[in-house]
Amino acid sequence: MKISKDHPRYRSLVTRERMAAMVEEGIVSTTGLIAHGRGEAFDYLLGEATVPEAELAERAAAALLLTAERPVITVNGNTAALAAKELGELARATGAQVEINLFHRSEERLRKVCDLVEKEMGMKVLGREQDAVLEGIASDRARCTGQGLLAADVVLIPLEDGDRAEAMAKAGKKVISIDLNPLSRTTLAAEVAVVDEITRAVPNMIRWAKVLKDRPEETRAVLAAFRNQENLAAVMYRICQGLEKGAAVRSER
Amino acid sequence: MKISKDHPRYRSLVTRERMAAMVEEGIVSTTGLIAHGRGEAFDYLLGEATVPEAELAERAAAALLLTAERPVITVNGNTAALAAKELGELARATGAQVEINLFHRSEERLRKVCDLVEKEMGMKVLGREQDAVLEGIASDRARCTGQGLLAADVVLIPLEDGDRAEAMAKAGKKVISIDLNPLSRTTLAAEVAVVDEITRAVPNMIRWAKVLKDRPEETRAVLAAFRNQENLAAVMYRICQGLEKGAAVRSER
Repeated sequence: MKISKDHPRYRSLVTRERMAAMVEEGIVSTTGLIAHGRGEAFDYLLGEATVPEAELAERAAAALLLTAERPVITVNGNTAALAAKELGELARATGAQVEINLFHRSEERLRKVCDLVEKEMGMKVLGREQDAVLEGIASDRARCTGQGLLAADVVLIPLEDGDRAEAMAKAGKKVISIDLNPLSRTTLAAEVAVVDEITRAVPNMIRWAKVLKDRPEETRAVLAAFRNQENLAAVMYRICQGLEKGAAVRSER
Repeated sequence: MKISKDHPRYRSLVTRERMAAMVEEGIVSTTGLIAHGRGEAFDYLLGEATVPEAELAERAAAALLLTAERPVITVNGNTAALAAKELGELARATGAQVEINLFHRSEERLRKVCDLVEKEMGMKVLGREQDAVLEGIASDRARCTGQGLLAADVVLIPLEDGDRAEAMAKAGKKVISIDLNPLSRTTLAAEVAVVDEITRAVPNMIRWAKVLKDRPEETRAVLAAFRNQENLAAVMYRICQGLEKGAAVRSER
């Protein structure tokens, strides 16, 4: 399908086509596609833009990654399809390791995703061999690496499953989520919840990481000032305003 | 994946697995899966239940179908996957014809969807041969049948695309939508907008069609009393209440 650059939802439509193509390549699973659609709906309610609350969370996320001792960024199929290159840049800017963690796991798919991500990032990633287990998850989705996720103090978990997010929080890790659903269990488990579309969020986080790098006082001040609950409440208020505006436009017709 | 019947979101998860399986069979397209995900997000905001406003719209929809001269129900890939059998029952209860209309059209897919729907419904459907064109749509998505969609006075368009919904409304047809997005162009184009999940909505519409059949006065009274705009505004108010409740639960943590 040819999409005009003038289309008001051009970016969203191009991303959708990319996700569909990534299913063909075995990177994205079919349930991953459905999850992408859920995100589209919330993004639609946010006006498909980075709202001010998201920008605040992205700055705090960069600060938290910079102050971490052992930061890790987890990457699943959807994340690999949408933002592998940018997350590599963020990893370099913050000294984080990258670990691949699939929800629908097969040896073949794991290999494909690892190959794609290493190529896009231009760096080695963890997760080809999983030698450890995250407590509190029944299935083999608990599997992770001992030197990566299990040892991490701060984890950035874009588009992550709720069970895994909660298990990481319970294990005492400081969780940074990127998730468009402001009410998801993943968002709930986060200390810094970024409610924004991943391809908009990550470049902002890179920018903030570069601004805050080697400025420890400013970085600490950013973290001290960030109020996650208030920030999320403001996002939900904003979504409601959008819905009411939509209702008002409709009733004028 | 095995899903426990006790899971609070059992029904939604089973539906999701069914949709993924239907992609394998060539009934549902990959972008159809993403659209399903968008619906899931809105359903989540509605509490995955038929809200009172939806029930009112379903009753009005049944009434409008019963009073129509030439009612038509359109069926695309997602609709065929989720509710073919039930829509067949609704067609029989209201005297409507069924017409297949795909968004991502190929001869092979059209044949597959027609075969599935006719088998599930136990009746013939229109759309294998498309001999007419709906004005106002540039692509071959304008194609339809002269004896079905083009001649219809009332159309029930579950999970329909916005362009087609608007074109049908412009052509003077009374449109009944089933769409979980209360702000979508499809919902906007409808005279009776059902904001509910299709597998919950259609059985309710069948029930109301059976109640109202052969009761023309009551049917007319139902239609006269239905206020589509007010009903939609109430749905949006309800979604906002849900978001605010979510925010309140969160802030207590």
